[in-house]
Amino acid sequence: MSLDGEYDRANIFARILRGEAPAARIFEDTESLAFMDVFPQARGHSLAIHKTVEARNLLDVEAAPLQALILTVRRIVRATREALNPDGILVSQFNGAAAGQTIYHLHFHIVPRWQGQPPRPHGAGAMADPDELADLAKQIAARMEG
Amino acid sequence: MSLDGEYDRANIFARILRGEAPAARIFEDTESLAFMDVFPQARGHSLAIHKTVEARNLLDVEAAPLQALILTVRRIVRATREALNPDGILVSQFNGAAAGQTIYHLHFHIVPRWQGQPPRPHGAGAMADPDELADLAKQIAARMEG
Repeated sequence: MSLDGEYDRANIFARILRGEAPAARIFEDTESLAFMDVFPQARGHSLAIHKTVEARNLLDVEAAPLQALILTVRRIVRATREALNPDGILVSQFNGAAAGQTIYHLHFHIVPRWQGQPPRPHGAGAMADPDELADLAKQIAARMEG
Repeated sequence: MSLDGEYDRANIFARILRGEAPAARIFEDTESLAFMDVFPQARGHSLAIHKTVEARNLLDVEAAPLQALILTVRRIVRATREALNPDGILVSQFNGAAAGQTIYHLHFHIVPRWQGQPPRPHGAGAMADPDELADLAKQIAARMEG
């Protein structure tokens, strides 16, 4: 079942979870965390991850944490729609480097799409401005349901 | 919460579910169905859908059916890995035309990726050969867990 090595506790998402690295946080509950991607493919691009399970991707993750995480993805999609009013929202999840995975802690991408604006390649260009990400996170957080 | 209109019971996935249209079926349980995409972006490209819920995408779907469906996605990812040995597997889900959605019945794409072989654009080219799709479905079905 292996695909691109073992879970590495030094990965950036694990460091964010331990408070060792910053993130523009949108939402957090007992099981999941959502925050802005620092290399956004489009304005409002965020990520949802599980907080306690050391799974690289769908090959590793148990049923219950995945089921918790997908509800957070749904909530972020809806809040992003309300906050930023994109024309569409792409959800993606990568298993292995050949599928685009660069960080081996299970995560879902939530990428707003606007008509006529193709998304930037992942990781292309400079890091986003932290203040702008914090502002976007605040806008999305304000539209989270219940 | 609307994005690109109402649920349409004449959509192709609803027709597949009613037995009015063919599909190379991989797996079926009480809540979900997985089958091969007829316009594959790569060899082994499949789709997982909910069988009974009339939801267009993540904007509509209730928690429980989404949680059932994501487990089927996980099973198909794992079986595809075992059956076809791709270098990676991309999972994607589109909300709205601007995000690539063409069929308004909630579905997840499971797309095998091979190093150095970029995926074809969705819907580009001719329909896949039905016999080839049936053979791939059989190969993946044979590797489904329990």
